[in-house]
Amino acid sequence: MTGRLTIVGLGPGDEALKTSRAVEALAAASDLVGYHTYLARVPERAGQHRHGSDNREEITRAREALQLAAAGRHVAVVSSGDPGVFAMASAVFEAIEAGEKAWRTLDVEVVPGVSAMFAAAARLGAPLGHDFCAISLSDNLKPWEVVLQRLTAAAEAGFVIALYNPISRARPWQLGAAFERLRLLLPPSTPVAFARAISRPDERVLITDLQSAMPATADMSTLVLIGSAETRRLDRASGDPWLYTPRSLEARS
Amino acid sequence: MTGRLTIVGLGPGDEALKTSRAVEALAAASDLVGYHTYLARVPERAGQHRHGSDNREEITRAREALQLAAAGRHVAVVSSGDPGVFAMASAVFEAIEAGEKAWRTLDVEVVPGVSAMFAAAARLGAPLGHDFCAISLSDNLKPWEVVLQRLTAAAEAGFVIALYNPISRARPWQLGAAFERLRLLLPPSTPVAFARAISRPDERVLITDLQSAMPATADMSTLVLIGSAETRRLDRASGDPWLYTPRSLEARS
Repeated sequence: MTGRLTIVGLGPGDEALKTSRAVEALAAASDLVGYHTYLARVPERAGQHRHGSDNREEITRAREALQLAAAGRHVAVVSSGDPGVFAMASAVFEAIEAGEKAWRTLDVEVVPGVSAMFAAAARLGAPLGHDFCAISLSDNLKPWEVVLQRLTAAAEAGFVIALYNPISRARPWQLGAAFERLRLLLPPSTPVAFARAISRPDERVLITDLQSAMPATADMSTLVLIGSAETRRLDRASGDPWLYTPRSLEARS
Repeated sequence: MTGRLTIVGLGPGDEALKTSRAVEALAAASDLVGYHTYLARVPERAGQHRHGSDNREEITRAREALQLAAAGRHVAVVSSGDPGVFAMASAVFEAIEAGEKAWRTLDVEVVPGVSAMFAAAARLGAPLGHDFCAISLSDNLKPWEVVLQRLTAAAEAGFVIALYNPISRARPWQLGAAFERLRLLLPPSTPVAFARAISRPDERVLITDLQSAMPATADMSTLVLIGSAETRRLDRASGDPWLYTPRSLEARS
């Protein structure tokens, strides 16, 4: 029996935003491996083994999944959003590179998903309609100085910026410091959106601007989007305004 | 009868990478609007009107969709990948802003999809596993000088770079000029991947490095990925190497 490892993107939360390949891969697995909270999103299935773990234990989880696959199991590693974006896919390849040679012969498939950033953008309008970047604010993973350099480069170059991992109990000040840096570089009226738990029952959206953006609006489930000089706010009679970034620089004049 | 406009992401091509919300929105529409090639991906349905148009006619197409919705039709605008990424969603909001006031009262929904960049990343491994950006190389939409500034900023700041619209008959030299610029900033061994028509029957992948990357490898259906200094190539006994970018800067040492 040959093992198999599939890294499955669950999408942002709503079942309707899962791909059918993800549904199929989850159903075909003998073993599901993942963070408890994400595993809880996958329907229980008789005979299927579930291996839940805490957040932050990504490498341990990746090694466990690889060991199971090497032992002949069909393993699905679950990941929220798209598994290649600040999520489990990189952890698995890190574990493969540092691990047993035999792991490189495993059948590994990454099933892409609807990412949190694109779900948030769709909910808001089309703020990522032109050049954009994604930055993780976690300074567990890189020196804070590098985060600041990237924020500066992105703002100066005119990218729309999606901030992942904006805040947590262990990292309470980083988002405020990021806003401070961006206020030196972008107009006060630059649109900022806080998009929390998009497509889930506890979804919450706040649209504001850079001068008024408060770090406390964000939590661990929030994606923060910072517009570029082109990003536009389109007010309407009812409902939140739409945010969008035109396809061309010229369209703005 | 109240009109409705839904902008639907079809995903990268494979039916299995479509979300069920997309399938549902396409089935519920009275009218489908889109580029011929993308419309051809949607199964025919009795009683449903199809309004195909040529590529590049995005604003005309968006206005047509809005007029139909304002007349009470249930319109689905189809877009490849994710509709918010260099695609139809921004064109629709541009048309709304420039158009009739009544269009702002329309029920507009954007259905996110699996984007070409994340489908390509999944096929390759996890090259977008850390900070990354997406840049359109089309200088129809912005001055070439701005493209060069953004490439420079992204390379200097250490982003992995996804290049959309790398080449076309009307824009033959831009990708070569982009590689030239990047060769001044990044090591010759920086991984470069050409990911063409991912998940479609004519899928083709080439993994190389910056010093050897040839613009002619790309066509209009190709996404070009340029690694960062952290991006790693993991060779294996059979199959293409995997490309991945570790979650942290420290993991590289």
